[in-house]
Amino acid sequence: MTEFTSTQIQLAARPHGWPTADDFRTVEVVHGDLEPGQVRVRNEFVSVDPYMRGRMNDTRSYVAPYAIGGTITGGAVGRVVESAAPEVPVGAVVLHQHGWTDTVQADAATFRVLPEIPGMPLSLHLHVLGMTGLTAYVGLTTIAGLREGDTVFVSGAAGAVGTAVGQIAKLLGAKRVIGSAGSAEKVKLLTEKYGYDAAFNYKDGDVRGQLAAAAPEGIDVYFDNVGGDHLEAALAAFNDGGRAALCGAIAMYNTTDRVPGPDNLANIITRGLTLKGFTLASYLHVAPEFQEKMTPWFSGGKIAYDETIVDGIENTVDAFLDMMRGANTGKMLVRV
Amino acid sequence: MTEFTSTQIQLAARPHGWPTADDFRTVEVVHGDLEPGQVRVRNEFVSVDPYMRGRMNDTRSYVAPYAIGGTITGGAVGRVVESAAPEVPVGAVVLHQHGWTDTVQADAATFRVLPEIPGMPLSLHLHVLGMTGLTAYVGLTTIAGLREGDTVFVSGAAGAVGTAVGQIAKLLGAKRVIGSAGSAEKVKLLTEKYGYDAAFNYKDGDVRGQLAAAAPEGIDVYFDNVGGDHLEAALAAFNDGGRAALCGAIAMYNTTDRVPGPDNLANIITRGLTLKGFTLASYLHVAPEFQEKMTPWFSGGKIAYDETIVDGIENTVDAFLDMMRGANTGKMLVRV
Repeated sequence: MTEFTSTQIQLAARPHGWPTADDFRTVEVVHGDLEPGQVRVRNEFVSVDPYMRGRMNDTRSYVAPYAIGGTITGGAVGRVVESAAPEVPVGAVVLHQHGWTDTVQADAATFRVLPEIPGMPLSLHLHVLGMTGLTAYVGLTTIAGLREGDTVFVSGAAGAVGTAVGQIAKLLGAKRVIGSAGSAEKVKLLTEKYGYDAAFNYKDGDVRGQLAAAAPEGIDVYFDNVGGDHLEAALAAFNDGGRAALCGAIAMYNTTDRVPGPDNLANIITRGLTLKGFTLASYLHVAPEFQEKMTPWFSGGKIAYDETIVDGIENTVDAFLDMMRGANTGKMLVRV
Repeated sequence: MTEFTSTQIQLAARPHGWPTADDFRTVEVVHGDLEPGQVRVRNEFVSVDPYMRGRMNDTRSYVAPYAIGGTITGGAVGRVVESAAPEVPVGAVVLHQHGWTDTVQADAATFRVLPEIPGMPLSLHLHVLGMTGLTAYVGLTTIAGLREGDTVFVSGAAGAVGTAVGQIAKLLGAKRVIGSAGSAEKVKLLTEKYGYDAAFNYKDGDVRGQLAAAAPEGIDVYFDNVGGDHLEAALAAFNDGGRAALCGAIAMYNTTDRVPGPDNLANIITRGLTLKGFTLASYLHVAPEFQEKMTPWFSGGKIAYDETIVDGIENTVDAFLDMMRGANTGKMLVRV
């Protein structure tokens, strides 16, 4: 056993509006010998996700805010390099929530050993086969009550969750899936790779008009990753009895002004709509059902995915900021 | 059989913003002899309701808009004065939807014969024992999923639906019920007569602050009759997993400008809230369950109510406008 040093990214200050590099600091943490029951893990991939922006604020939510001076926690996969816990042996691939660090030393119980499937990149456990895929599945099923024949609208459709939502919606029997994204290239990808029946670039403006044109018969389900003008457009396009799963509001995460909501909330009454917000922490019990569905879909080649990979733990903050700006297609990851 | 004339109130023009007397016209309609299967009913009470304002607009909703030149339809109770249908005999008390008219002649199937209970005013079939009570019950149970021990907030609490909501919530096991109304007198009535644990006057301003003070432990259920700043205050006060039944948005009915929604919709996500809108037409199947609960409550003296009664069918428009301005306490009715 030897002392070793890990490189970790900590929150230095609560961002006001858009985060900057100054809101974070990179520190070297020196660890002592393993205690009994602990393992040491060298990360291979670290996840950067939109929800992390919310945790940087000191506001009430299901999940506690990040502490100033604490390491940014979140999903990561790595390999055990040293073990004082027989159930998590050296060489095992593990999933954990220790976040933005190149190496982590902690109780074995905080790691989940993953099966290694030849040819399957470990990074997938951080998106289509992991939390991202589960988020898409829970939102469509438990939250929005997707039914066969529904028309589904997805905002932020080219992001990690959005690319999964479109495909899962079709696999579950949606008639038509419409997506919005922030570039012509992403819009093309949605229809050519991810099975979207129609897509539009919200940066072309008139989100309401573009959605109405793409969904002439209205929408039944809305999976919201964006909020703001996208939610307003969905409320205008909803058929009676429509259901919205509110998963994210990236449009609002970095604003410092109070941004008024849609002006057509009265449609919720007149059309008998249901809006339901969720964070995955409350729906982890759906994971077994998701695995049961996702495993054959994935091995049957029915799930396409993209990864935008940034190398080096020291570039994690840049990766996070790029993701918030929409620079990624599919899942944004840091390769350690 | 003889010809007779009825006095009816028709929609003359679609109101722009607040309705005025010019948007309506009073007409004398001449009816011929009854046809087989028809009855003639002399109304005793005619209902004026907030939802009617919505039907005066030409917008898509569960219910079709009122036709220009057509009589304003809605709830009314009356007595059969002539009958060509044996199942609805002369003298029977009937409930119907023929609306703003002193007398109506129509197919017997469009009338529901009511039991006459000695000492019970017929007008109650237009509120606590009728649609108003059912709306309160459906909103609390089917829509908001009220649970024992919940804290409930009701906006527009001194209106017909609001006075019913507070009492029904307590009877169904709510721990604490908080109401908002538009005068000190109404606020007093809420706590002294209608079983509200706390109430405030929204015209004193700072709805968010007043609600927070009245609900220091947060709210679990919100019954919304108002929208706007009340919905925003509720979103700020909600506990995790809170549920809102959106029943009305009287704050928005007469605006001509686009009014932005609450600026804190992101709470729907972070607190896992559910907002569900409804109009009663889709929930009439709950009526038997409601009757089963309401009949013993009412005969047990557990249901208080108020009526604000205006005399004369020719004053129906004034009664409607006064109700929209909040001049009523409890149910606003026209006595024919």
